[in-house]
Amino acid sequence: MNTTDTIDQPNGGALHVIPLGGVEEIGLNMTVFQYEDDIIIVDAGLMFPDEEMLGVDIVIPDFTYILENREKIRGIVLTHGHEDHVGALPYLLKEIDVPVFGTPLTLALVKEKLKEFEMTETTLISVKPRDIVTLGVFRVEFLRVTHSIVDGVGLGIQTPLGNIIHTGDFKIDPTPVDGELMDFHKFTEYGEKGTLLMMSDSTNAEKGGFTFSEKEVRRAFEDIFAKTHGRIIIATFASNIHRVQQAIDVAVQNNRKVIMCGRSMVSNAAIALELGYLKMPQGTWVKIEQLKDLRDDEVVIITTGSQGEPMSVLSRIAIDEHKQIKIKEGDTVILSAKVIPGNERSIGRIINHLMRRGADVKYEQVSDIHVSGHASKEELKLMMNLVKPKYFVPIHGEYRHLKYHYRLAEKSGIPKENLFILENGSVLEITDTGACVRDKVTAGRVFIDGRDSAGVEDIVLRDRRRLAHDGIVIILVGIEKSTKKMISGPEIISRGFVFEDASQDIINEVRNLMSAALENLDDSVIADVSLVQSKMRSTLKKYLRNTMERSPMIMPIIMEV
Amino acid sequence: MNTTDTIDQPNGGALHVIPLGGVEEIGLNMTVFQYEDDIIIVDAGLMFPDEEMLGVDIVIPDFTYILENREKIRGIVLTHGHEDHVGALPYLLKEIDVPVFGTPLTLALVKEKLKEFEMTETTLISVKPRDIVTLGVFRVEFLRVTHSIVDGVGLGIQTPLGNIIHTGDFKIDPTPVDGELMDFHKFTEYGEKGTLLMMSDSTNAEKGGFTFSEKEVRRAFEDIFAKTHGRIIIATFASNIHRVQQAIDVAVQNNRKVIMCGRSMVSNAAIALELGYLKMPQGTWVKIEQLKDLRDDEVVIITTGSQGEPMSVLSRIAIDEHKQIKIKEGDTVILSAKVIPGNERSIGRIINHLMRRGADVKYEQVSDIHVSGHASKEELKLMMNLVKPKYFVPIHGEYRHLKYHYRLAEKSGIPKENLFILENGSVLEITDTGACVRDKVTAGRVFIDGRDSAGVEDIVLRDRRRLAHDGIVIILVGIEKSTKKMISGPEIISRGFVFEDASQDIINEVRNLMSAALENLDDSVIADVSLVQSKMRSTLKKYLRNTMERSPMIMPIIMEV
Repeated sequence: MNTTDTIDQPNGGALHVIPLGGVEEIGLNMTVFQYEDDIIIVDAGLMFPDEEMLGVDIVIPDFTYILENREKIRGIVLTHGHEDHVGALPYLLKEIDVPVFGTPLTLALVKEKLKEFEMTETTLISVKPRDIVTLGVFRVEFLRVTHSIVDGVGLGIQTPLGNIIHTGDFKIDPTPVDGELMDFHKFTEYGEKGTLLMMSDSTNAEKGGFTFSEKEVRRAFEDIFAKTHGRIIIATFASNIHRVQQAIDVAVQNNRKVIMCGRSMVSNAAIALELGYLKMPQGTWVKIEQLKDLRDDEVVIITTGSQGEPMSVLSRIAIDEHKQIKIKEGDTVILSAKVIPGNERSIGRIINHLMRRGADVKYEQVSDIHVSGHASKEELKLMMNLVKPKYFVPIHGEYRHLKYHYRLAEKSGIPKENLFILENGSVLEITDTGACVRDKVTAGRVFIDGRDSAGVEDIVLRDRRRLAHDGIVIILVGIEKSTKKMISGPEIISRGFVFEDASQDIINEVRNLMSAALENLDDSVIADVSLVQSKMRSTLKKYLRNTMERSPMIMPIIMEV
Repeated sequence: MNTTDTIDQPNGGALHVIPLGGVEEIGLNMTVFQYEDDIIIVDAGLMFPDEEMLGVDIVIPDFTYILENREKIRGIVLTHGHEDHVGALPYLLKEIDVPVFGTPLTLALVKEKLKEFEMTETTLISVKPRDIVTLGVFRVEFLRVTHSIVDGVGLGIQTPLGNIIHTGDFKIDPTPVDGELMDFHKFTEYGEKGTLLMMSDSTNAEKGGFTFSEKEVRRAFEDIFAKTHGRIIIATFASNIHRVQQAIDVAVQNNRKVIMCGRSMVSNAAIALELGYLKMPQGTWVKIEQLKDLRDDEVVIITTGSQGEPMSVLSRIAIDEHKQIKIKEGDTVILSAKVIPGNERSIGRIINHLMRRGADVKYEQVSDIHVSGHASKEELKLMMNLVKPKYFVPIHGEYRHLKYHYRLAEKSGIPKENLFILENGSVLEITDTGACVRDKVTAGRVFIDGRDSAGVEDIVLRDRRRLAHDGIVIILVGIEKSTKKMISGPEIISRGFVFEDASQDIINEVRNLMSAALENLDDSVIADVSLVQSKMRSTLKKYLRNTMERSPMIMPIIMEV
């Protein structure tokens, strides 16, 4: 299918729903809702690179479609403050100037992020659950949901063709830490009136049953605290304010002071405290400098680094490179977070280091110290029953998650022809007469490396993979311009191939091989630099493959002087 | 501690136990047992590289200690045929010529491997359980254990100071597929007589309870087969003959023919069939060419690729690049294997591809189609109770696994001073008067890339990581030897940094920066090539960090002509 960046409007009005990210991955969440000349954008998330995206710092969605239709955009609506929903905002807001709507904590996290990018001009409009904002033909209602970050919302989007429910990220937590239940009333109200389309979180669609309440973690914390007389270090995501709240509550209950570590942990806790999302008695949160004055059983350290990120506080503690915190016998470290796929080995290494230095480490495999923030199968079906959508689109997942969610919808009685698994850039068109997937707009991933917001090209990544695998061999030859005679070289330089000091024989062999190859060339070939280069490259490639089974990048450089 | 490669012998005889791999990782299993001038080696395993070992094909233990003491080696004893126990053998046998002892299937797998390396001279001596071989002062008895490969054994090693039990990899399977129970009698006999030292498998020491019997998988297979009318594709490890046997049994029971795919699957199945470890009625195993003549409900395809290995049959099927097998609606794919940490994302990708093409995919998260081959906590304690060792050394694990196993031993009543967590190269010395860890011999990891068995140096890997992260920028300058004047360049060439065609402005800026840097140098500096290079490197490094937040490898090349 060819992609396009404008969509024909059928007669009679059509609603177009276009995910620009989040339906081929966990991350990059971003959806465009368009009705004629009005567009709203829901979320603008990033994704962290996987191991093949070498040197890439973060990944963001391709904004082409949005930029091509910039004059139609009425606003950006945020469901919650997780990076996979707001992390691409600074890059988007660099390009377009539209108001951004979100709940207080979400916006406070966004503001912090924009500050890092030195962007202070954005219009951020704070909303609370059940607020309704009008954006062109759309009326967007914010609906409280429970998730692993406070102040998360789903969206009720009223359109000329009917109502859409976008769940955001959610689970159905019957006992949320802050007591703020999901807005069952509103969700069922949409259901009663009849929902045109629901888009729902598929992250845990593979998992049976109900996801445990966040409060279950408190029990696990209480057990550990009761048995522990040494210091306790809890690592979790800085954005998981509920988890931090529970750690603080149990700390207070056990007469322990709390020390926050890690830039994002300190800043998020401060924001949440200021906005009233985090509560603790005066004097609970103490500075790290006080650590040395406290007895071991008076301390809880809450920190980042639960994913084994190499520069995080926990990693530095683990390898004894943290200035104030040195692990000793009797310390207990709790990794209270999900192991994000791909991080198993680095987390494993951290655990080994901590245990080797005497800490007792509680992690997911051996302790119940984490619950998911996403709905499992039974909750997903319940959500369908409450909202009773005509059309259903699973979002927030890789294909397999979407497919499992699709099957749940099928089992819940939504007819197959009303179920749509979309790809990034797919255009779901809904009219009075039906719904179908048509067109595909430009969509994809932009790889951000350093400060260049244009993104890293595929060819650059391909070269990096090549260099990573077998390194580079440079062959340097000087040729006299007038006579076309070789006047210096071939000189062999390599990096990531063999260690030259230890492998002079290999380097010598390569040099001899290249000399021989050059000597055998006749003058007409020598005259053509690119022919000489290609001859050198192919000769060396073959030689290295046969003798060493390696294929480094080969770069013949001919300098004519 | 300085390392050494000879060990002083105390008076009165001492037994030295030296793990050369396997106690800081899952993999590289290899242990040296030495008594005065007699050495035996147990296993010689490899490890697959992790994501930081760029371009490395496999990792093997450092053999220095063995090579320094080659005249003392009486033999190599193998516990079973998994790669992490026999994969380094060809590299070791290139260096030393000693007999290798193992059970028939283990040796058949080794033979196959040696053939690949064109090594046919090795003396392979086949043993069966309860056989005893005398190697210098050591008498080694082979003891049947149950594991995820058939024909696995533990070892009873009789030494002048007492008996050692080396469990090999094991679980206690009460209903093994081949009916061959662990040799409870012999293990308890050692226990009755008094065991000096036990070294035991720690892989699952974090896991509570008992590991399920391999036969449990059969039930899961039967359920899936009963409900499936389409083709069934089962991916598992080629060495897991029991799993393959169960797939075949259920296939036969359901009147399906079996097609084996993947080089190692075909070769292992053929070996196991020939040796009588795999049994099936004549006509069950058919050639892939017959696939097109069979109805969908008459087919089971058993294949490799359960870890998402990019070149495996399953990967090729998943992305529609397999010649004979095209996934279609109605196919069921069973990934009947553990997800090895680090492979989550590639396995996830395979599942997405298969599902997108219409297959139903059963994997560990959604189905009970795999059980572990390693003992869990209760089995490990049971083994301690049977063997009743005086000293205990947990093996086969990273630090955290060893530590968990250590704690089990403590709970089982072995005094703390008799428990030892060793590192690779640690020398555990046992004498009549006690045991302690002393010295450390050379040990470590050798990175094999291609055919160079010397291994890749650390500096090469460091360069590869650097190249992988931000690529390379080469600055080329020609200087006239006699006048020290710049006669050509600076020319800028890069790979993995920016795509030059699209980023001419960056390249131009770099060129101008370098020109300016060179112009400002005075003649005395120009005369010293290394000074010029370092000036260019530092200038560009600073510039790229400030403007782009990147730090590619910078390689100034000055050619004097």
